Amino acid sequence: MLTLFLIGIGCGDPEQLTRAATRAINVADLVLIPRKGSAKSDLADLRRTICTDVLTNKTTRIAEFDLPVRDAAESDYRKGVDDWHDAVAAVWSQTIASHLGDEGKVALLIWGDPSLYDSSLRIARRLNPLPDIEVVPGITSIQALCAAHALPLNDIGEPFLVTTGRRLREGGWPQGVDTVVVMLDGGTAFQSLDPAGLHIWWGAYLGMPDQIIISGALAEAGPRIVALRQEARERHGWIMDSYILKRRP
Amino acid sequence: MLTLFLIGIGCGDPEQLTRAATRAINVADLVLIPRKGSAKSDLADLRRTICTDVLTNKTTRIAEFDLPVRDAAESDYRKGVDDWHDAVAAVWSQTIASHLGDEGKVALLIWGDPSLYDSSLRIARRLNPLPDIEVVPGITSIQALCAAHALPLNDIGEPFLVTTGRRLREGGWPQGVDTVVVMLDGGTAFQSLDPAGLHIWWGAYLGMPDQIIISGALAEAGPRIVALRQEARERHGWIMDSYILKRRP
Ligand SMILES: C[S@@+](CC[C@H](N)C(=O)[O-])C[C@H]1O[C@@H](n2cnc3c(N)ncnc32)[C@H](O)[C@@H]1O
Ligand SMILES: C[S@@+](CC[C@H](N)C(=O)[O-])C[C@H]1O[C@@H](n2cnc3c(N)ncnc32)[C@H](O)[C@@H]1O
Repeated sequence: MLTLFLIGIGCGDPEQLTRAATRAINVADLVLIPRKGSAKSDLADLRRTICTDVLTNKTTRIAEFDLPVRDAAESDYRKGVDDWHDAVAAVWSQTIASHLGDEGKVALLIWGDPSLYDSSLRIARRLNPLPDIEVVPGITSIQALCAAHALPLNDIGEPFLVTTGRRLREGGWPQGVDTVVVMLDGGTAFQSLDPAGLHIWWGAYLGMPDQIIISGALAEAGPRIVALRQEARERHGWIMDSYILKRRP
Repeated sequence: MLTLFLIGIGCGDPEQLTRAATRAINVADLVLIPRKGSAKSDLADLRRTICTDVLTNKTTRIAEFDLPVRDAAESDYRKGVDDWHDAVAAVWSQTIASHLGDEGKVALLIWGDPSLYDSSLRIARRLNPLPDIEVVPGITSIQALCAAHALPLNDIGEPFLVTTGRRLREGGWPQGVDTVVVMLDGGTAFQSLDPAGLHIWWGAYLGMPDQIIISGALAEAGPRIVALRQEARERHGWIMDSYILKRRP
């Protein structure tokens, strides 16, 4: 039997690692580490750092593999994602088979938490043979963002929505909520909103040495974020950022 | 100067503790532990267990204090909460002053993550003198719920709403989302919904030895949850549960 551990490792700060994550890494026979291409190599590096840092089990092997690239030419978005999940599952299966055969414990280190905007659980369900799946929760970028700003996410007894930059841009301010968390924003979708009455808490490279945070009234903080984001992105070659918007009457 | 660490400790499993949490507990001069009354003493116990478990700094002191009770007779809900926050802030201030004076590092261990349906950040802002506030993120019950079910929280690229039992009961299915996380449900608010097309992933005592999870079509799983919840609640004297609902076309 094969067991696959999907281990949340937090979103940039190795100090976010939980005791359960450390334990799961150390019971693994094999740790799989994706190579993601040079731009985001800092992220693969975090996985390597964590492995070297916490791995005390001398028999655990580490295997790197090249992550297939999603076909950007596929016009059907859902089909593109589907095909990509199949391709990744095939690479996982091959890497596991060649290092371990069909028995043992495999660990995958997942950015943030495996349940939040991450495809590993969906890919794992496509593996052949189908492994037992164990999820170890990790600190998400939402929590890192709130912590950096010392911000309570929800208002008292009130709901909040978590959404993507694309959704915010296309749908405007969502109905029925005064708090919106935005992830996966390739740009600055908050610019599509009327800033009146809105506040923003923004953060990039959260938990990392280069963490930047900005907060304030959207009308005033928005333009500062746009400029700083552009500058930081050019300097690093990549950016990962998220933000919380609140409507204040 | 006073520094207050609000430290997320996860929601029941001491293995959810992060390295940053362990570190913050050990730099504290004083750890404050609320006594919450006998029914939920298991929860105060987790805080004590964690302290004994991870505290290696011999100079750190631990102080227990009685948490004031919210005035249930106050008809204005917002005012009741406000008064209660003031009362808790006063007790924190007193306990800190009597053990530490006005200088040093104080730690409060927070259930789950300090930013999620928790009042500590709001109470901390009412302290006199106002301390520096440092937040250490912790694993939330939402993540523990998803992990227990090996469930991806969001659908691909789709938003989700986090809300309370009361809101769900009063407002029905929220607009614009197919995934809803429900917390702080004193009852079983999902019973107020038409179950057609809905699926539920429910969990109680997540991360604890008595963890129970149930999932399935709401029409079928709902009644099982209602019965099991009632039975578990009587046996323990208290229950903490959360659930995720998804609408499937
Ligand atoms: C594919 S999702 C993965 C989310 C991850 N599973 C989590 O739990 O946070 C990537 C998005 O998460 C957010 N994100 C992840 N890490 C971040 C960080 N260190 N700083 C800011 N945002 C981050 C960004 O919005 C980014 O677009
Ligand atoms: C006052 S809120 C605190 C939430 C906490 N800060 C967190 O991050 O999960 C309490 C609610 O959290 C959920 N909860 C907390 N711990 C839980 C557990 N171990 N199992 C199930 N639900 C839990 C329940 O919905 C409960 O009503």
